[in-house]
Amino acid sequence: MIVRMRQGAGEEEISGVVRILAEGGAHVQRSGRGEVLISADGGTERPLAVLAALPGVASVEPGSRVPAGRGTRELELAPGVTVGGRELFLVAGPCSAEGEEMLHAVAAAVAASGGRGLRAGAYKPRTSPYAFQGLGEEGLWMLRRAADAHGLLVVSEILDAGQLPLMAEICDVLQVGARNMHNTVLLRELGTARLPVLLKRGMAATVEEWIGAAEYVAAHGNPRVLLCERGIRTFETATRNTMDISAIPLLLGRSPFPVLADPSHGTGRRELVAPMARAALAAGADGLLVEIHPEPDRALSDGAQSLDLDGYREMVSSLRRVAGAVDREVPEPAAPEPAGA
Amino acid sequence: MIVRMRQGAGEEEISGVVRILAEGGAHVQRSGRGEVLISADGGTERPLAVLAALPGVASVEPGSRVPAGRGTRELELAPGVTVGGRELFLVAGPCSAEGEEMLHAVAAAVAASGGRGLRAGAYKPRTSPYAFQGLGEEGLWMLRRAADAHGLLVVSEILDAGQLPLMAEICDVLQVGARNMHNTVLLRELGTARLPVLLKRGMAATVEEWIGAAEYVAAHGNPRVLLCERGIRTFETATRNTMDISAIPLLLGRSPFPVLADPSHGTGRRELVAPMARAALAAGADGLLVEIHPEPDRALSDGAQSLDLDGYREMVSSLRRVAGAVDREVPEPAAPEPAGA
Amino acid sequence: MIVRMRQGAGEEEISGVVRILAEGGAHVQRSGRGEVLISADGGTERPLAVLAALPGVASVEPGSRVPAGRGTRELELAPGVTVGGRELFLVAGPCSAEGEEMLHAVAAAVAASGGRGLRAGAYKPRTSPYAFQGLGEEGLWMLRRAADAHGLLVVSEILDAGQLPLMAEICDVLQVGARNMHNTVLLRELGTARLPVLLKRGMAATVEEWIGAAEYVAAHGNPRVLLCERGIRTFETATRNTMDISAIPLLLGRSPFPVLADPSHGTGRRELVAPMARAALAAGADGLLVEIHPEPDRALSDGAQSLDLDGYREMVSSLRRVAGAVDREVPEPAAPEPAGA
Amino acid sequence: MIVRMRQGAGEEEISGVVRILAEGGAHVQRSGRGEVLISADGGTERPLAVLAALPGVASVEPGSRVPAGRGTRELELAPGVTVGGRELFLVAGPCSAEGEEMLHAVAAAVAASGGRGLRAGAYKPRTSPYAFQGLGEEGLWMLRRAADAHGLLVVSEILDAGQLPLMAEICDVLQVGARNMHNTVLLRELGTARLPVLLKRGMAATVEEWIGAAEYVAAHGNPRVLLCERGIRTFETATRNTMDISAIPLLLGRSPFPVLADPSHGTGRRELVAPMARAALAAGADGLLVEIHPEPDRALSDGAQSLDLDGYREMVSSLRRVAGAVDREVPEPAAPEPAGA
Repeated sequence: MIVRMRQGAGEEEISGVVRILAEGGAHVQRSGRGEVLISADGGTERPLAVLAALPGVASVEPGSRVPAGRGTRELELAPGVTVGGRELFLVAGPCSAEGEEMLHAVAAAVAASGGRGLRAGAYKPRTSPYAFQGLGEEGLWMLRRAADAHGLLVVSEILDAGQLPLMAEICDVLQVGARNMHNTVLLRELGTARLPVLLKRGMAATVEEWIGAAEYVAAHGNPRVLLCERGIRTFETATRNTMDISAIPLLLGRSPFPVLADPSHGTGRRELVAPMARAALAAGADGLLVEIHPEPDRALSDGAQSLDLDGYREMVSSLRRVAGAVDREVPEPAAPEPAGA
Repeated sequence: MIVRMRQGAGEEEISGVVRILAEGGAHVQRSGRGEVLISADGGTERPLAVLAALPGVASVEPGSRVPAGRGTRELELAPGVTVGGRELFLVAGPCSAEGEEMLHAVAAAVAASGGRGLRAGAYKPRTSPYAFQGLGEEGLWMLRRAADAHGLLVVSEILDAGQLPLMAEICDVLQVGARNMHNTVLLRELGTARLPVLLKRGMAATVEEWIGAAEYVAAHGNPRVLLCERGIRTFETATRNTMDISAIPLLLGRSPFPVLADPSHGTGRRELVAPMARAALAAGADGLLVEIHPEPDRALSDGAQSLDLDGYREMVSSLRRVAGAVDREVPEPAAPEPAGA
Repeated sequence: MIVRMRQGAGEEEISGVVRILAEGGAHVQRSGRGEVLISADGGTERPLAVLAALPGVASVEPGSRVPAGRGTRELELAPGVTVGGRELFLVAGPCSAEGEEMLHAVAAAVAASGGRGLRAGAYKPRTSPYAFQGLGEEGLWMLRRAADAHGLLVVSEILDAGQLPLMAEICDVLQVGARNMHNTVLLRELGTARLPVLLKRGMAATVEEWIGAAEYVAAHGNPRVLLCERGIRTFETATRNTMDISAIPLLLGRSPFPVLADPSHGTGRRELVAPMARAALAAGADGLLVEIHPEPDRALSDGAQSLDLDGYREMVSSLRRVAGAVDREVPEPAAPEPAGA
Repeated sequence: MIVRMRQGAGEEEISGVVRILAEGGAHVQRSGRGEVLISADGGTERPLAVLAALPGVASVEPGSRVPAGRGTRELELAPGVTVGGRELFLVAGPCSAEGEEMLHAVAAAVAASGGRGLRAGAYKPRTSPYAFQGLGEEGLWMLRRAADAHGLLVVSEILDAGQLPLMAEICDVLQVGARNMHNTVLLRELGTARLPVLLKRGMAATVEEWIGAAEYVAAHGNPRVLLCERGIRTFETATRNTMDISAIPLLLGRSPFPVLADPSHGTGRRELVAPMARAALAAGADGLLVEIHPEPDRALSDGAQSLDLDGYREMVSSLRRVAGAVDREVPEPAAPEPAGA
């Protein structure tokens, strides 16, 4: 339900209503400024009339979710680069930033296909203490140089709030991985950041919980959130995860955030990446995150799901056709690929 | 592994090998006629040399799965109607055959959009004894007449081997529902049928188990099996099932059977049917099974996931564009819609 | 909600109410005889007053589920053998009836520990056409002889309604396997049988669907249904299934049927059988179904989850202690084990 | 496999082997000191002989997992309080520390039943910005005072590495919640702590991943880890989670850490808490974590799964009997309950 507070309702009145709803077990949200709306989903049902009688309440209506206040899904990520409009936002790169040379090769391939973002991990969330942990700050700067040489944005995963100052200086978009979707401390900190946040779905998160996490970032001050479907965990073992393509149109209908898809983690199998990328676009995705590597079989991590550079080019060329069939387009490369790339 | 038997190996020798492999826990299959191949997946590993020494064995090779013996996925369902080739096989209809008039209206709409099959249930697998159980034989004949009036094939669900003689007389394709995918008695009987079998995925079946069920029908004599993805059961409650679009390209790579998709049961939500139908085609599906109803909100069952006839037309028109983008096509309507439809 | 019909309400009035509720998508049930109660769970909500105004309706109350009409869970399976009371009903045996001698050895061990039932499969629901399919009728008679020699009931799985006449002649309890829990044709037929039915949970069935299937058998005339938890399919691969112990107390609170547990299929791992059997009893189970084999490593099927006879004896002795701690007991062996067993 | 390094093998040789294994996708671990053992699970298989030829390698053997080096599961948490031995470690408390008085009432009830730990959240990981976020440091001190008054340990959840200094000063055991099981930054930091860590299972974590997370803490220097099963996410909606009781005996066999169970979050339903607590003990759990509240229906969070204080006493009294049946015991209360409690 939506509780609309009176003009001038005091903070005490507002938090009184919030508390009563939250105590009943509801998922409660309130709009940020001006007229205060409080939405409650779930929880103990209470007669609307009882709520309407609380101090400060103007009206109570059935319904749900406070609108995030943006009339469109389109979001500017950097001058000239948007997501959520007609142009698709394609981001690609290796799982890990492994070295300067390979990042340049990858960046060249991404830019040459009309991609707008270069993605690689500098900090890897490995539970095993002996797996490759990433190159850290050095990796981020490598990524920055490679992206700059080809006019791309840098997208990289943040693991901890402590990394925010450094990453905000170097990157253009901060990714929150599936394992951190419920990490409220990190989400809250990202609410204070001025960078867009690319929030992956937790591997056992419902669509509602995922939207809730995005709204949490927005409610803390940063509405520039992108969602990215990357598969959920099910009983099926033929794929690494089960990519929930239906989440894409669901999100487009229920939340104001642009929606990307990651068919690499979504399937874990190289041969499924292109068909699932096409499926995601056909279902309405605003962009893609794809793992590519110049030599996938020598990748330090996740090689089995990475396309090589030729495979990536072929895939994007098939995506152009599907995009056209759903009134979207893959951008043309900004300029001819520089000779030295 | 594949065990190749000698020409003229006796049945006793063959079953000796099969038994040894099966006792080790392997999933064992043998090819039907002529040269006998036995494939074993899983189970206790045994040295190839030991198996090669068994009576009647010609050779033993690593690898898996006896080929189903068809060089192409394309399958003729009726004169002039194929599935698995360039043309997509679109089937639509109401959940239940509810009456003569509505079936004619639906059949006209299906034919007018280039669909090739009319599907409705005459026997409904309801666990509740008081839910609508279907019209039975009467419903099948209604379906037949409506399909004939518009040049369509009849697709309907078989629940029990005892229904086979009647249904084989009336229908063109027999559907096995998700709840019966593991019903070996029914599958074995369908192995003796001369009709194509449309085998839906069980709601908790892995892709491998599903292929196994299709091969079971084939091994009993009927290789004309179509697979249909209809969603699996996961923790997500925003959709009725989680449609596993990645199963489509997986199946195309691993089995010789054409692959359809059912976005109606796959999602359970009307507004997701068209985007998921597009996604399925973009991922390579050979056709679709879609629930439509002249008045979805008055449907006796599954109205919430049914499109109305206008919605269906619009969806198919969007599908034509996506089909073109992946080198497939939705057939043109065979003839102008008859005046009386 | 519960709709209470007037004394003398006609069948047409009753089915009118049922139809209206079912059309709204509710799960509808009606009580068998005398005063007619109709319960509806789920579906479109309609004002109670509207329903109360329908012809033949006496009253409409919030609430759910028509009581099955038995004041107690206790059920007599055969003279002197009950389930659902203080005494636990222990059933054990090999996955398949493999031969006369081994069945006698198993039956002797079962009886010597206070077990009441001998279970083995004579028809095996294997999807692979070359796996061991069971000994069929011959196996059933072997089972009968072994059970009779040791005063045990015969429990065996029925795969198809066509097997009912033969199995009803030979067996004491008919098991419906997980793969057939949704097989309404089989369930309906078992509603006409005079034997108790042991209904295993489908591998992706919710507790509510499972109760619905049991009530379906009861509604067709056979209220003697036992439920058996055997694990559900989840993402966890360390066990064959995830045994849902919480289903046991849930069922005891929500349905009138006795509840057994099968820790062999529930876990698929021999070393987990005894601890999970203890857990099931501690949670309130009325009995157990356990796979045992004189030589598990030579079993034709499911050896990895079978206990040997000594392991079974040890387990039952630990169960006696746990049973005592929850006010239940494992029966004493009826008589000293016969010399010739 | 286990790779045994030569005495005196250099760090470079050791990390060379680790890197080769990790690149192949294996889960790699190495033992801490003295003779260096490297274990690799999964990943690309390589001939043992190839690995045996690497510099510094003494031998290569099939097998898995470097032993954690403790001969027993028993762990001293504080003077006189152990977990993993004959005595069960019972911890209880409200979801949130709500106030001084209620914490004293709860602590008195816990101590009076033989419990050893008082648990409550001071920081709550709520994704909704308007749900009750916990009392923070103030709540921790309240908890400390209530625990001290009744001779109990303080167990509370840490959400972020930044909270470690404060929490290490006030608490006795730090809980890592299900949402943070994969938070490697937090786990690494806890590896440096001198407090025991109670690591809950992630809601979609396999048993192997969970053990991996515990070993990650241990590998960073803190081997005092307790595991706590709290249910996994499945398709079943009748319970909040599906409590995987079989994980308890699995863990006892595969890892050196004590294992607790949380039937409150595991089920989300008050009436299932006691039967599931009994089941967990019968399956071998070393202790329990249970939510209790003086007035569950007025709890600020999770009231539906909380027992009241009388319910808790009754449950513990039933647990004493089950404990006895599996050769464990619930400790007696240390002393008569103080008058002022």
